[in-house]
Amino acid sequence: MNVRILDLSVPLGDGSPNCPVHPPVSIPVTADHPADGWRMEEFHMASHTGTHLDAPLHKIAGGKSIDQYPLEAFTGPVVGLDLTARVTAGTPIDAAMLESACAGHELRDRIVLLETGWGRKRAKTDEWLYQSPYLAPSGAEWLVARGIRAVGIDHFSIGGMIEEENTRTHEILLGAEVWVIEELRFPDGWREFAANAVFQACRSICPASPVRPAEPS
Amino acid sequence: MNVRILDLSVPLGDGSPNCPVHPPVSIPVTADHPADGWRMEEFHMASHTGTHLDAPLHKIAGGKSIDQYPLEAFTGPVVGLDLTARVTAGTPIDAAMLESACAGHELRDRIVLLETGWGRKRAKTDEWLYQSPYLAPSGAEWLVARGIRAVGIDHFSIGGMIEEENTRTHEILLGAEVWVIEELRFPDGWREFAANAVFQACRSICPASPVRPAEPS
Repeated sequence: MNVRILDLSVPLGDGSPNCPVHPPVSIPVTADHPADGWRMEEFHMASHTGTHLDAPLHKIAGGKSIDQYPLEAFTGPVVGLDLTARVTAGTPIDAAMLESACAGHELRDRIVLLETGWGRKRAKTDEWLYQSPYLAPSGAEWLVARGIRAVGIDHFSIGGMIEEENTRTHEILLGAEVWVIEELRFPDGWREFAANAVFQACRSICPASPVRPAEPS
Repeated sequence: MNVRILDLSVPLGDGSPNCPVHPPVSIPVTADHPADGWRMEEFHMASHTGTHLDAPLHKIAGGKSIDQYPLEAFTGPVVGLDLTARVTAGTPIDAAMLESACAGHELRDRIVLLETGWGRKRAKTDEWLYQSPYLAPSGAEWLVARGIRAVGIDHFSIGGMIEEENTRTHEILLGAEVWVIEELRFPDGWREFAANAVFQACRSICPASPVRPAEPS
């Protein structure tokens, strides 16, 4: 048995950059060596801070919460899309871009991960906070129509920071029970690894997002 | 590809029972339908609340932190021990008990999970908080001498609530770089499932603890 795991989640620490409409991330060390003889931290943050999953209930009244999915729903084959050469600040990822980027990929029941490059800019800057490329409503409709299981992106808001587009993108995805992973971190080489891998998002409060190599069925 | 996942972590909610020397668990809903058009929570808790991992640094000055282990270190074969008929309130799990309970099990490099039954009593009661069975220092030494990789238990303190025994048990395990999982939840039937499974603890801030069936090597 030879399992390799690739962590696709961002590190979280005291004062980590996060969505500006959420409370700041506070992770104070509350006991430490040598004075206390042990080390402890506390966590104070929003549930949508760091790498996390949007369940339908996040935007849809009466929608499914995370614990209403079986854990196996968060496991499955990945389609990893490199959009880094196609997007820049504020670029909408629309149906036409996806049509081109997804050529040749089977999408039905797949977990589609969109690498925009914005994850590498993670910092408390106007650029990272407000100017990310984003999945446009037409892109969300295109993915839903192809029967994807889930979609992830390397920024904290898959729909960007401009209303009504952001809300509309969330409603299209979550209204179709397509769950969303936001603020993924894509390390070098992840896509070659992912090509023969199984994605697994953990249903803990701040899900890690390992990609494991596929096993024989 | 057919993955089954068994969640061995406790649910966490606002006011969940937890270690009384840690701050209370506060998970307020800070936005909700229909007034806000979305649902959000905040988390306020200690890093050792709920199902969690003790890395050496938790008790050993200069010891390893969780992020100094490769993720694969938290994956491996399990030995699940049913101690429920051997323990009651305050019972020390000592070398003699483990010698008997582990008969016939290979322990080297294994993740040893101790089911005491205390997880089913989880509530803010004197019994659950202060009277759990616990791994005695002699039991910790016995496990370390057999080369185990890790040990878990269904209570928030593997060494119980009485000093110096609690500290000594932690020091023996963590001083040997045997990591510890506390406050596991063992659902009915988990042991039959685990017999042919791979354990995987997630290195997120509050690790879920799925057990997956083994794949061919």
